[in-house]
Amino acid sequence: MTAEANVGVVGLAAMGGSLARNLAYHGNKVAVFNRTYARTEKLMAEHGDEGEFFPAKTLAEFVASLAKPRVAIIMVKAGAPTDTMIDQLADLMEPGDIIVDAGNAHFPDTIRREKAISARGLHFVGCGVSGGEEGALKGPSMMPGGSEESWKALKPIFESIAAKAEGKPCVAHIGENGAGHFVKMVHNGIEYSDMQLIAESYDLMRRGLGMTAEEIADVFEAWNATELNSYLIEITADILHEKDKKTGKPLVDVIVDHAGMKGTGTWTVQSALDLAVPVTGISEAVFARGLSDQTELREEAQKQDFQVGRSGLEGMPLEERQAFVNNIREALYASKIVAYAQGFNEIQAAAKAYGWDIDLAAVARIWRGGCIIRAKFLNRISDAFESGEANVSLLFAPYFKDALETADHSWRRVVSRAVNFGIPVPVFSSSLAYFDGLRSKRLPACLIQGQRDYFGAHTYQRVDEPGVFHTLWAEKDRPEIKES
Amino acid sequence: MTAEANVGVVGLAAMGGSLARNLAYHGNKVAVFNRTYARTEKLMAEHGDEGEFFPAKTLAEFVASLAKPRVAIIMVKAGAPTDTMIDQLADLMEPGDIIVDAGNAHFPDTIRREKAISARGLHFVGCGVSGGEEGALKGPSMMPGGSEESWKALKPIFESIAAKAEGKPCVAHIGENGAGHFVKMVHNGIEYSDMQLIAESYDLMRRGLGMTAEEIADVFEAWNATELNSYLIEITADILHEKDKKTGKPLVDVIVDHAGMKGTGTWTVQSALDLAVPVTGISEAVFARGLSDQTELREEAQKQDFQVGRSGLEGMPLEERQAFVNNIREALYASKIVAYAQGFNEIQAAAKAYGWDIDLAAVARIWRGGCIIRAKFLNRISDAFESGEANVSLLFAPYFKDALETADHSWRRVVSRAVNFGIPVPVFSSSLAYFDGLRSKRLPACLIQGQRDYFGAHTYQRVDEPGVFHTLWAEKDRPEIKES
Repeated sequence: MTAEANVGVVGLAAMGGSLARNLAYHGNKVAVFNRTYARTEKLMAEHGDEGEFFPAKTLAEFVASLAKPRVAIIMVKAGAPTDTMIDQLADLMEPGDIIVDAGNAHFPDTIRREKAISARGLHFVGCGVSGGEEGALKGPSMMPGGSEESWKALKPIFESIAAKAEGKPCVAHIGENGAGHFVKMVHNGIEYSDMQLIAESYDLMRRGLGMTAEEIADVFEAWNATELNSYLIEITADILHEKDKKTGKPLVDVIVDHAGMKGTGTWTVQSALDLAVPVTGISEAVFARGLSDQTELREEAQKQDFQVGRSGLEGMPLEERQAFVNNIREALYASKIVAYAQGFNEIQAAAKAYGWDIDLAAVARIWRGGCIIRAKFLNRISDAFESGEANVSLLFAPYFKDALETADHSWRRVVSRAVNFGIPVPVFSSSLAYFDGLRSKRLPACLIQGQRDYFGAHTYQRVDEPGVFHTLWAEKDRPEIKES
Repeated sequence: MTAEANVGVVGLAAMGGSLARNLAYHGNKVAVFNRTYARTEKLMAEHGDEGEFFPAKTLAEFVASLAKPRVAIIMVKAGAPTDTMIDQLADLMEPGDIIVDAGNAHFPDTIRREKAISARGLHFVGCGVSGGEEGALKGPSMMPGGSEESWKALKPIFESIAAKAEGKPCVAHIGENGAGHFVKMVHNGIEYSDMQLIAESYDLMRRGLGMTAEEIADVFEAWNATELNSYLIEITADILHEKDKKTGKPLVDVIVDHAGMKGTGTWTVQSALDLAVPVTGISEAVFARGLSDQTELREEAQKQDFQVGRSGLEGMPLEERQAFVNNIREALYASKIVAYAQGFNEIQAAAKAYGWDIDLAAVARIWRGGCIIRAKFLNRISDAFESGEANVSLLFAPYFKDALETADHSWRRVVSRAVNFGIPVPVFSSSLAYFDGLRSKRLPACLIQGQRDYFGAHTYQRVDEPGVFHTLWAEKDRPEIKES
């Protein structure tokens, strides 16, 4: 075994196998290893002719086949299996070598691992990879963290396999240690809100306006030619057009309405809570999935047959219906802008808290291709961060400010109608509430701070004088004292 | 030093000192210790005649003054200081003795500590204590976790000092290890939503209807004589009546509108996310505080001067205004019911996940007095759990179902008006969205599950056949395969 391979992949299940093939197809010399060798043999039998592979029977062989500095990409199960594999590789590798974890690790784990591995003189890179199995094979969006030095070695390899958007590879060095996995996590959180917003729009048309799945598919197809152009809108049209083979009904009607989840959305909200950054769009989307899956609660609610809400908008005249569909489109766009603004604010706050130097324009650029949330409007986001217009919030960049002002009437119309007709639009409405809160000159938080001072002596600030104050609420004259 | 004291308090700052006085006042023989003895001397000088105290200069003296089984209540800073004190006490104490942490510990810490201390043969009790300094002195609501055996020893002591509601002490054994601190945490989360709902109601009247602080104070005073009767409504009226000594303006107008927070609300939402239980009311309340404190974001938003929303409801005729105030009251009540239902669901889910046997009726009962969320309607909640009517959700108990149906028209009217006039009501609207989601026969989660199957092969279930299915979306005829 000569040390010829310029990159190696450990773990050849769906994602790992696809990544290895993508690497080989693009001219890399790819060492491959899997715990059970049969899977390696199968990959070689089916795809060995797609490029230059170096199949290894043992991890030692795998490491020996890599040219220095060695680059080993791990794509095994998150948690203990990943830790075990990192340790085994580190034992076999030498200072300057690079271990890449391309799985969906939680960023605190990546920070911990990077610390341990870099202490041994090796590089550890937590790399977010989006796009699923197809992305891994044909070009994912890649979000590597880790040291600048490791990035120099990884750049040509990753650029060779990443998706291309307007000719540019969808990969950029995000920042030190856990930065890559953090940004990938927020990507997934935004994906939750994107999907829930589409679901709410569908629900408004289906239950609200009484449209058929086919009619709604056509609407999404038309929307895909607007500023909403995106992968998720495109596949939604496709899914809604799909007929069930068995019953002939729209497939969407035979799918049980319980949405699953795997944790990255939950982490996104939990991290935002740690950072005190509101991500109401994402949290409502995560909770909406949680609610959909509460079988007992939902079944009991059906038995209760609440006598509330109204019956829907079916009686709406055709002309008004078309106008309302346009209102929904504008409301969807405005809510989506808010959810992205919140997600980017979370990344900004994390960068500050964890000491990462993250280029938000680059983040938006590498999300334009390969990943699930790829969309035309990410060009606008990238421009807004590039120019500095979105430094404080995406909502303040002229293009997005204008979009919100244009959508405003529709947004309020859709939410108030949904509320009156009893159709839940949690992300539409929480995004609007966030926007209205954000632009309020005075918020009733003054009353909350007064309550906190009353029952807990938590003090308050005054609008007309610096310092920290407390009213002695229990005393007769209630004097105010200046605490500092 | 003879071992005469039946209970001891370690840490004599505001909360600890008040708790020690409360204990002594109610006939307990109270050992007291503080790291700096000067504070102990001050307490004795000022309040030593209120009962029987045993001041100790060293921790060893403190332990020696306690009769067996020794009961030591720790009220020191959370985190490392608490851990240090527990260790020092455990070294001095003997099997069968009881260490109580009465601070606001995070429940996983309590679980960890209980495990370590019980392994040494001692009892460790994490006890939530609500009511602030005044509660600690005059009667708090107490939520002890820990073993049944320790509860036998603590019961008479805690019952002697707890608040009384309808003659019953507001303390109950919540469950093993971290159960007490978990329930206290959710109590605080509910407190966040209660306060935010009051703030939203105030905002609707103030900015929406153009009412004065004084007029709104009167409204809250009147509401306190309805089903909304509660400590928080009562103090809200009191705060809104208060005039600033310096300017003569309503005090609420000179308080900076940034609400602080200390972490228990954040923990409540993070734990709910771990349990996949929607707590949208609490999360929106936590995020609203977060938003209120984002100075740069809010200042920049003012500069932007968004041309959106409408001007408010000031033009509303007086008669209609009064009707709208009643709408707000009903909407507040309905939203509050939802927030409590979500909070109790979180406790139920935690009990299942962490192996606690929690009596929800008892939880509601001990919240009736002493604590910040004490309210008349907790009697109704207690009854609903007692009878089993609220087993699945509080919303299904006839009293609450009826309250929601009665409030429905008002609730929708208030939210839709707020939306149209640009006043943020995040908890009102997210609670309503949760209610509408809960009672939906079909949710658009079917579309989300279809999307997940499309881009990630996450599979779906069918409404008409058991099993797990996947459509091969990339193949021409898109066959459906049964995966299991």
